[in-house]
Amino acid sequence: MMKKTSRFLQTPIEPFAVEAGLTADEILSRMERISFQGRNLATAQHVWQKMLEDDVTIFLGMAGALSAGGLRLVVAHFITNRYIDCLVSTGANLYHDLHETRGQHHYVGSPHSDDAALADAGIDRVYDTLASEEEFIGNDNWIAEFAASLEARPYTTREFLYLLGGHLWKTTARDGILTAAYRANVPIFCPAIADSSIGMGLSQARQERAGSGYIDVIGDIVESANLVIRRPRTASIVLGGGTPKNFINQASVQAEFYSDKVGGHRYALQIVTDVPYFGGASGSTLEEAQSWGKLAADAARISVHADATIALPILASALAATAGPLLARRQIPVFTLAARVMTVGGQTVPSDRFEDANAPAV
Amino acid sequence: MMKKTSRFLQTPIEPFAVEAGLTADEILSRMERISFQGRNLATAQHVWQKMLEDDVTIFLGMAGALSAGGLRLVVAHFITNRYIDCLVSTGANLYHDLHETRGQHHYVGSPHSDDAALADAGIDRVYDTLASEEEFIGNDNWIAEFAASLEARPYTTREFLYLLGGHLWKTTARDGILTAAYRANVPIFCPAIADSSIGMGLSQARQERAGSGYIDVIGDIVESANLVIRRPRTASIVLGGGTPKNFINQASVQAEFYSDKVGGHRYALQIVTDVPYFGGASGSTLEEAQSWGKLAADAARISVHADATIALPILASALAATAGPLLARRQIPVFTLAARVMTVGGQTVPSDRFEDANAPAV
Amino acid sequence: MMKKTSRFLQTPIEPFAVEAGLTADEILSRMERISFQGRNLATAQHVWQKMLEDDVTIFLGMAGALSAGGLRLVVAHFITNRYIDCLVSTGANLYHDLHETRGQHHYVGSPHSDDAALADAGIDRVYDTLASEEEFIGNDNWIAEFAASLEARPYTTREFLYLLGGHLWKTTARDGILTAAYRANVPIFCPAIADSSIGMGLSQARQERAGSGYIDVIGDIVESANLVIRRPRTASIVLGGGTPKNFINQASVQAEFYSDKVGGHRYALQIVTDVPYFGGASGSTLEEAQSWGKLAADAARISVHADATIALPILASALAATAGPLLARRQIPVFTLAARVMTVGGQTVPSDRFEDANAPAV
Amino acid sequence: MMKKTSRFLQTPIEPFAVEAGLTADEILSRMERISFQGRNLATAQHVWQKMLEDDVTIFLGMAGALSAGGLRLVVAHFITNRYIDCLVSTGANLYHDLHETRGQHHYVGSPHSDDAALADAGIDRVYDTLASEEEFIGNDNWIAEFAASLEARPYTTREFLYLLGGHLWKTTARDGILTAAYRANVPIFCPAIADSSIGMGLSQARQERAGSGYIDVIGDIVESANLVIRRPRTASIVLGGGTPKNFINQASVQAEFYSDKVGGHRYALQIVTDVPYFGGASGSTLEEAQSWGKLAADAARISVHADATIALPILASALAATAGPLLARRQIPVFTLAARVMTVGGQTVPSDRFEDANAPAV
Repeated sequence: MMKKTSRFLQTPIEPFAVEAGLTADEILSRMERISFQGRNLATAQHVWQKMLEDDVTIFLGMAGALSAGGLRLVVAHFITNRYIDCLVSTGANLYHDLHETRGQHHYVGSPHSDDAALADAGIDRVYDTLASEEEFIGNDNWIAEFAASLEARPYTTREFLYLLGGHLWKTTARDGILTAAYRANVPIFCPAIADSSIGMGLSQARQERAGSGYIDVIGDIVESANLVIRRPRTASIVLGGGTPKNFINQASVQAEFYSDKVGGHRYALQIVTDVPYFGGASGSTLEEAQSWGKLAADAARISVHADATIALPILASALAATAGPLLARRQIPVFTLAARVMTVGGQTVPSDRFEDANAPAV
Repeated sequence: MMKKTSRFLQTPIEPFAVEAGLTADEILSRMERISFQGRNLATAQHVWQKMLEDDVTIFLGMAGALSAGGLRLVVAHFITNRYIDCLVSTGANLYHDLHETRGQHHYVGSPHSDDAALADAGIDRVYDTLASEEEFIGNDNWIAEFAASLEARPYTTREFLYLLGGHLWKTTARDGILTAAYRANVPIFCPAIADSSIGMGLSQARQERAGSGYIDVIGDIVESANLVIRRPRTASIVLGGGTPKNFINQASVQAEFYSDKVGGHRYALQIVTDVPYFGGASGSTLEEAQSWGKLAADAARISVHADATIALPILASALAATAGPLLARRQIPVFTLAARVMTVGGQTVPSDRFEDANAPAV
Repeated sequence: MMKKTSRFLQTPIEPFAVEAGLTADEILSRMERISFQGRNLATAQHVWQKMLEDDVTIFLGMAGALSAGGLRLVVAHFITNRYIDCLVSTGANLYHDLHETRGQHHYVGSPHSDDAALADAGIDRVYDTLASEEEFIGNDNWIAEFAASLEARPYTTREFLYLLGGHLWKTTARDGILTAAYRANVPIFCPAIADSSIGMGLSQARQERAGSGYIDVIGDIVESANLVIRRPRTASIVLGGGTPKNFINQASVQAEFYSDKVGGHRYALQIVTDVPYFGGASGSTLEEAQSWGKLAADAARISVHADATIALPILASALAATAGPLLARRQIPVFTLAARVMTVGGQTVPSDRFEDANAPAV
Repeated sequence: MMKKTSRFLQTPIEPFAVEAGLTADEILSRMERISFQGRNLATAQHVWQKMLEDDVTIFLGMAGALSAGGLRLVVAHFITNRYIDCLVSTGANLYHDLHETRGQHHYVGSPHSDDAALADAGIDRVYDTLASEEEFIGNDNWIAEFAASLEARPYTTREFLYLLGGHLWKTTARDGILTAAYRANVPIFCPAIADSSIGMGLSQARQERAGSGYIDVIGDIVESANLVIRRPRTASIVLGGGTPKNFINQASVQAEFYSDKVGGHRYALQIVTDVPYFGGASGSTLEEAQSWGKLAADAARISVHADATIALPILASALAATAGPLLARRQIPVFTLAARVMTVGGQTVPSDRFEDANAPAV
């Protein structure tokens, strides 16, 4: 049967062929030419690999209860092996990470629990996952004590979280997001720290010692934008949306005011479950992001509509098999984070004023 | 730190540990103790394995464009290897399967296509997947000719689809859902055949030959219920909901009217993207199904909220590694499908009246 | 402050102004210039009104448990007042309508019910709505008896449902979807009747009388396409997707094979909760429908992403205030439905072969 | 026909009856006995009215682009008429409010825009809504100048937003969220201010004047908790989830550490589009909130799964007709917000330490 060829019909769908013993990367490789979100997940591996091949600063944003939900060591793996260069997280994810790094656990539960019984037993539920309120109170106190022990001055979340990660590492010597970031000198921003138990711990520090627990979240905006001004080529990976998604985009938009070398992220990958129809930022499309200049017009990009607890284990396992050589060749940005002013590649990244790259040299 | 033990806090979450070279079953095994839909996908493997170990008739329902989307050979694999015993499908999935088995393709496209341009070029789009309208018209004619060649009488979809599969196998000798089911003697029901291009082909048969193209969908209800009456222990696997989900449940409910040995499915697994909040059957919970008696009160069950194009390749790959011994030991129901009246285990499964198992022996 | 004018920035958003005593149409009028789904709902009123002003046959598709959920008299109102000309429904919606028209009820329940207790009490749950299984069994018998009383031959769902509506009206004289359609001579198609309790009733008719309960769903395809061939200008309104959505589109696509005057629906309105990302037809966009020729390239169209139990009461109340003059002026298609072959505008609409409008006159 | 009565089947569904001229409250009244989200929206009116009748502090959280999307005057109406006592918002909603209060607009656009063309034209898109980047830059400067004009010290968002609202009112004398809150002395918290254009404006203040633009978000935690300690009976209304949802719950949880009179919100109403299956806070159920003690075990509560741009205009219009007498009788909490330390009912609400209601009197 002779067919009219069409410019639209170039690449046939190749049905997925089942086989025992396939590894994650082999599975994703067979999913490249199927459809819908399966194809998008396979494409995500390629987009991430392109980020690793290019000379870009890779931001990872994480929202949702991914740490409590069992993905904290995946994120720690990304940090340690420098799949990413900067983490932007909700406070809850860092808090739940700290909870486990301190040797405690979250527990397998059911979404059909009797919540009144849980409340009576002092147990907090996150969908199908449980935790002890008493242990959480212990964490809050631990954070409060640590915060109260610091010099009483404002800290960006980036600085505070580095110090917290260091204290945690020294205390526990256990792997986790905060400790991995401390050891790998990877900055963490937490723009909505006031909306989390880390923020609650910080607020309790004020009870311990007047003048403690001051966080300079506006300084985080300046620092993150200066980071982009220093290294204008960037990439964005977002798990679940929320404040991290917008903060990563905002860093690029804000940087562009002060440097005409900044032109939006060169690559973008998001794994989301929200939809765009209701105007929320979490579900907004990567196309919409282009109108804002958050994303370069020709950026390689992919949205995967999936729960990260399914998509990320597969994606991370696949990358572990294929990204090694790319990671070995990567020219990673080198940070110092121990001082009030961080540096990248030897250059300061201030939090008190923007580096105006467009200003005429004096 | 001494902790109060709690009956609720028994099984700690174990963070997923990334490693190169993990196979699908190893990945799912590491996802058993994480949270949310990742855990549910791991549980799905267990529930399916329990079905294989038990003596149950396993129904698989498939809705959504899974065949066009690259999963038709996964379903064929389930049929050939008797992971399942009976398929209930939308017409579209069988039609798209036939399309590819006839040597044609679906094509990789984009959800951001210019649909007016596609319409001009005679190309049909399913989200990110394309097909040639001309080829589809060819399929319609092929189905119409075949249907017109049959004896002019009503056919259940089960009988018609068996004959269609046979014709397809003889013509193409290619693997696919219809041909696999034909060769493995696995019955296929298509309750909404009138809402599909297979139905369109059947309707066009009337143009070729008066009296052709009669389908007895009410006979399908009787046949499917009699099948459950003959073998009252059943399991339900549903991909995407739709008419197949309800039809599989209906078979059990209808059978229960005529046999008190029927008590709802013993196992249920659904991979869905719909939600229950709007009252639709596709998104309805497996708990709700219990109120109807569609599901036994103690049924092992799991809902995975995920796109099947992600979940199914992983799940099938994992099962390929672990289910072999279970499949080898399985006592599968044996069907004959070539005649107007099908049989299972040597017993007739009529389509013109219910087997009344409760009726007193005469 | 002087602004650059932009061709993109023409119509300002006008914030919704709260006021006591606003009627539904006044509220929708104030929602025209807000955003997101609120605007879309206001646009839906306009699109529907355009349908009423134009000379088009208006199809309404309904899926999901809208009858059980309290919207059956809204649909009956659309039928009686000829907001629509043809209904395509799932079987469940017609069955639940019949249930209430027979003087029975669905009941207010909770989504957090104890389903095992409900099962023990013989109560079926649809999300937050309950019904008595015993009453359902009574309905099944009632349908079976009626079906067994008919001449033993195949019936299209259109013919059967007309007869069923007539029987229901004569028995009960109560308002509902089936009785309103009977009295207004509005055809109803139910392509997936085999996947519903009406189908179950029909299947039980065979137990009462051999040869009864035969439904010719392929005839429905022919009839619905011939209807579009007879009146090529059409509009589609879809609540919830499912088989009705596709069947309405299929009628247009199938008709186009036999008449070059058919060019897709001129108007389309859908109220859906599904999303397009997973390739399912329910969530597919109206843009995608254009690639198939289901929708004319310049069709006025709107998708509202909302639960119909919120959107439809508002929309129907608003239209009740504004559509009166349009309804009064409407040139409605006039059907006869009492015979085996229906007519529209005096022309036959056969179910056994397509009217070939392209064929040369002999 | 005699029926077994059942304790489960008490309240029949009453189908919605269409009628011209129905007002919003009449429509909601007719939706009380339908199903699914329609019923939930009707219930929401009742729950809100119960809040107004009881002596509780009512928190309103708003996330998503509701201000840009045309709902800012609905929220302003709630503030002015004291349907609520305290607003917790994302920064974007306050920024978009300020944008319009300054006499500028958002514009009607399309979700199918050409984003590259928009980017070229300097236009930012939020789904179907557009805004001028140039005007946004103007806002940023305006905020930066104002922030730089303030005494250089840390401000809670509550204090800063009160001052900003005052400046906006004095400059524009136009209605909006910020100006209404200023005039009604209703506190606004913005825990994620660093993730918004208000934060960007604040960061730019540092360029204008060293030492300016310091925000004490940890102080917001203390203040909001002290507010609950001062008035332990509270209610939560949440639009869209996000940081406001959690912050309102956190205030209650944090307050409970220092006062045993605090026992979770007595009422909770959320209008959300997210779902709980993926573990995110936005979609989490109100039942889950009970396990945390965020919600009293016997709290009247309702979740409405709907876009706020549909649900809120209806709900606000209905309440405008029915809530008048309740508002007139309400004993509202009286705030002073002009100083660094706010007061409620004449009592101070400090931001530097928690009021320890459990501490023994000295």
